[in-house]
Amino acid sequence: MTTVGFIGLGIMGGPMSAHLVAAGHDVRGYDVHADAVARLVDAGGTAARDVAGAVAGADVVITMLPNHPQVEEVVLGPGGVLDSARPGTLLIDMSTIRPETSIAVAEAATAKEVRVLDAPVSGGEAGAKQATLSVMVGGEERDFADARPLLDALGKTIVHVGPHGAGQVVKAANQLLVGGIYGLVGEAIVLMEASGVDAKTGLDVLAGGLAANRILDLKRESMVARQFQPGFRIDLHHKDMGIALAAARQADVALPLTGLVAQLVAAGRAMGYGSLDHSALLKVTEQLSGRSQGSSREG
Amino acid sequence: MTTVGFIGLGIMGGPMSAHLVAAGHDVRGYDVHADAVARLVDAGGTAARDVAGAVAGADVVITMLPNHPQVEEVVLGPGGVLDSARPGTLLIDMSTIRPETSIAVAEAATAKEVRVLDAPVSGGEAGAKQATLSVMVGGEERDFADARPLLDALGKTIVHVGPHGAGQVVKAANQLLVGGIYGLVGEAIVLMEASGVDAKTGLDVLAGGLAANRILDLKRESMVARQFQPGFRIDLHHKDMGIALAAARQADVALPLTGLVAQLVAAGRAMGYGSLDHSALLKVTEQLSGRSQGSSREG
Amino acid sequence: MTTVGFIGLGIMGGPMSAHLVAAGHDVRGYDVHADAVARLVDAGGTAARDVAGAVAGADVVITMLPNHPQVEEVVLGPGGVLDSARPGTLLIDMSTIRPETSIAVAEAATAKEVRVLDAPVSGGEAGAKQATLSVMVGGEERDFADARPLLDALGKTIVHVGPHGAGQVVKAANQLLVGGIYGLVGEAIVLMEASGVDAKTGLDVLAGGLAANRILDLKRESMVARQFQPGFRIDLHHKDMGIALAAARQADVALPLTGLVAQLVAAGRAMGYGSLDHSALLKVTEQLSGRSQGSSREG
Amino acid sequence: MTTVGFIGLGIMGGPMSAHLVAAGHDVRGYDVHADAVARLVDAGGTAARDVAGAVAGADVVITMLPNHPQVEEVVLGPGGVLDSARPGTLLIDMSTIRPETSIAVAEAATAKEVRVLDAPVSGGEAGAKQATLSVMVGGEERDFADARPLLDALGKTIVHVGPHGAGQVVKAANQLLVGGIYGLVGEAIVLMEASGVDAKTGLDVLAGGLAANRILDLKRESMVARQFQPGFRIDLHHKDMGIALAAARQADVALPLTGLVAQLVAAGRAMGYGSLDHSALLKVTEQLSGRSQGSSREG
Repeated sequence: MTTVGFIGLGIMGGPMSAHLVAAGHDVRGYDVHADAVARLVDAGGTAARDVAGAVAGADVVITMLPNHPQVEEVVLGPGGVLDSARPGTLLIDMSTIRPETSIAVAEAATAKEVRVLDAPVSGGEAGAKQATLSVMVGGEERDFADARPLLDALGKTIVHVGPHGAGQVVKAANQLLVGGIYGLVGEAIVLMEASGVDAKTGLDVLAGGLAANRILDLKRESMVARQFQPGFRIDLHHKDMGIALAAARQADVALPLTGLVAQLVAAGRAMGYGSLDHSALLKVTEQLSGRSQGSSREG
Repeated sequence: MTTVGFIGLGIMGGPMSAHLVAAGHDVRGYDVHADAVARLVDAGGTAARDVAGAVAGADVVITMLPNHPQVEEVVLGPGGVLDSARPGTLLIDMSTIRPETSIAVAEAATAKEVRVLDAPVSGGEAGAKQATLSVMVGGEERDFADARPLLDALGKTIVHVGPHGAGQVVKAANQLLVGGIYGLVGEAIVLMEASGVDAKTGLDVLAGGLAANRILDLKRESMVARQFQPGFRIDLHHKDMGIALAAARQADVALPLTGLVAQLVAAGRAMGYGSLDHSALLKVTEQLSGRSQGSSREG
Repeated sequence: MTTVGFIGLGIMGGPMSAHLVAAGHDVRGYDVHADAVARLVDAGGTAARDVAGAVAGADVVITMLPNHPQVEEVVLGPGGVLDSARPGTLLIDMSTIRPETSIAVAEAATAKEVRVLDAPVSGGEAGAKQATLSVMVGGEERDFADARPLLDALGKTIVHVGPHGAGQVVKAANQLLVGGIYGLVGEAIVLMEASGVDAKTGLDVLAGGLAANRILDLKRESMVARQFQPGFRIDLHHKDMGIALAAARQADVALPLTGLVAQLVAAGRAMGYGSLDHSALLKVTEQLSGRSQGSSREG
Repeated sequence: MTTVGFIGLGIMGGPMSAHLVAAGHDVRGYDVHADAVARLVDAGGTAARDVAGAVAGADVVITMLPNHPQVEEVVLGPGGVLDSARPGTLLIDMSTIRPETSIAVAEAATAKEVRVLDAPVSGGEAGAKQATLSVMVGGEERDFADARPLLDALGKTIVHVGPHGAGQVVKAANQLLVGGIYGLVGEAIVLMEASGVDAKTGLDVLAGGLAANRILDLKRESMVARQFQPGFRIDLHHKDMGIALAAARQADVALPLTGLVAQLVAAGRAMGYGSLDHSALLKVTEQLSGRSQGSSREG
């Protein structure tokens, strides 16, 4: 049994913290929303009054927060994790944020003898509920070994991918690929439909060849039917494309396709589709080709 | 047994025509290169002296040619297929060309009571040799039914996707997806390597999630190792991206990612990688990020 | 006085041929539209019954046609210019077409001892009427010298830029720059408006610095006011971006911005703005940012 | 005479603060580099020991700093401007930073009754030395009126463009246009050179038509000659493209060309051209077209 402080009990952190309780751990949770804390108590966890309360006495602290400003405030800010954690504590930040923030957190933590891993996940709300997340972990090998039993309660694929920040880099790579493939599939659909080809039949052929991909497998029917219930919202993918571009800037590389995909995802949000599934990137391509009026059925 | 005139006996047409011989058909072949014709004769086919000779007496004519100028010359030109074919002949053009040329061929053929299908393939040289091609067919349903027994001797996935030109549109959609995914995988690799992440480990994670795709499955090891033996050459993919853009123009749609991918593939060719596998698009991304000097092992 | 056969008497060719009459030349015109020929006769020219009639006896033949298929038909086709022109005739093709077609025309013409220049223009309908066109000329220096007196009657800036096809290349370069600058100005306007900045004031500042350009000078007020009367139509710019991409392919270069601009111009056409001025590329950027509904005043 | 605290006395701030001394103001300067402070003293200013020392007693505080982290530290941090400034002080931040930081600074300043303007400049080192900068000012109209006499000593074009952050937005718009035009001119040059057209002659024609722009006027000769002494360095333009993308994100707009230009500028830096003039974006386009080896003369 490990004593775990868990900060951020939302759509992702809620079910994740409950899995840790179910696995026999002593979980002390905190969230800015009291009802989220109440749900953890219902699941068998303990309520903490604030960040310091969740951290006090914890062997491991897990943070699952929306973006880097929240991580900076909760971890680095006054009254934050590093102010309260005793030396040797292991902080596992499972938020999806920019690699440079993960690295800055690691530097600040090391100065306080707190060990830290960046461990963003993919698999979304369904993966959190079913404990089938993929977890991409950056940091020291031995800290990864210590975290492993806890992470095994949360996901299926738990991989140590490199030093501090590496987890975020792999997550960013994942999101640029996913966003880009959605964009390409959308262009294929628009081209076929506008050419008088039955898109469903055409996509079936594509899904059988070198162009095959999981998005075609899972989403081609819903995309052709213009059903865009999330799933993973465009607003979140927009945030993640910003992280991918920040990661590229940090690594001093040039990623032209990623740069364009980021703007197309931004268009999806700006056009008002932010709360639809990211497969709704198809709607941006449609609008660009003047083919969207009256033909779509949203979510 | 069908009498088949087969025009274009190169890397693709050579093994394809031999499969038809092996399936018991009477194949009369023509190619501008005499040695290609000789190989067909060795395989049990008959040599034709010219296009007209291959077409004379044929029930079905198959053309497998490099690009639209050759199709225009062989089919529409003086002494071409339409000059020689008797009414009712079925012309199956298996070349990968622009949809608008396939449509123009169909119009000209119809005027001469020749039936026609556009039937481009994917699967490359290996697919041609092993008779595992995918064939995307545009044209009339009953002509497709007539062609089916012959096409079954050439590939595994034989699909009627729509009217004249539709086969070319689906092939174009396939190629824009394949080219785009190569570009995205290349950007993911460059980002991870430049960030100090082990790309092989990172790609393994990606291949297990929503970003999964056949290119990752088949090519991620060779890409990380910078092994770029073709496979399918960048020069050919460059031709195919031109077809995708022509198809988009014909259909009056705007495909921004396809437009950018086309230029990146053009860069691969312009940089001198035209004879490498299309996975060498990675080398373009590397150069853009100043990471190519001395680190690559080609072929 | 020179005897000039002039083929293509439309929006551009009409006023151009009239200027040649006014300059004292014997102009024999042909167009597929009889009323266009009638206007030339009104202006003092002579009607020709067909291409051959316009070419017969001419020292110089000028063609001003929509695109490469018309040039191929009128110049290279049966009964075309090269069938009728006597050796030594100078053919000046002022159409905007792909460089490769200009080169093919030059090769065919040379075989018939006809001299040829490609001489596309910029300046649009207004420039044609006011004889203020810019003319970019490709071909032999001495043929340019011979053409110069005629071209001086049509424009202000007459420049020999290189060998056969070079005129088309410079025209293509012009159009990619113009299209791209429109796209960039549109992005600047959308960014400023969405940020609560008065776009007119902001553009005034931009027009005074390193970002200054003629499009800002001439069009910023009409763009901010959403007035998009042509001018030069998006449909024509769409054709010209296709030429720019064909020129890039011919030259074996990769032009990523041009590739993207071409798709944005295609979007303008696909969205239904093809008959508006090319400054209406702003409307594409607006739609991408969800900012177009009900706020625009067209034309 | 105004008492001015001036923080940031580098390449830009050095000559700017000297102009204020020359205009008769009492300038108290601070910089982390002691020699920069010493130069101000030589010019007739007063040395401050730290930020608080520069701010104490000042009517106006001017900051000219590299990027937003420095602004956040100097203005918002402990011992920063807002800790020391008396109510009513006018803070003019002339740094080029993200609009959102300017807005955050304005909110924090207002809470302390400090008035603030964002006032980024264009015109570079030469403009700073010659007091010919353009200054784009965001904030309250009456604060702009108060700042005007000081700003008149620094530049020629001083424009109030909107509320807090608006100065940064206009600067961002300027930089995306400049970066984009450089990219387009580079593509035009590569296309012409690869097509056998004399680029200098071709650019002369372009500079006389609708494609005319100040970059063509000032830089076409040096670009064709591959002379890339800064001027304004690619490294700085890379920073500024990051600001443009941040501004777009903040305004919830999609800017596809800006997104691509940002990656091409990033490529320039990643390829090792960061310290060359931004016109060296041409070298990125050359490399993409395989045309750079051995043919360039840098700096």
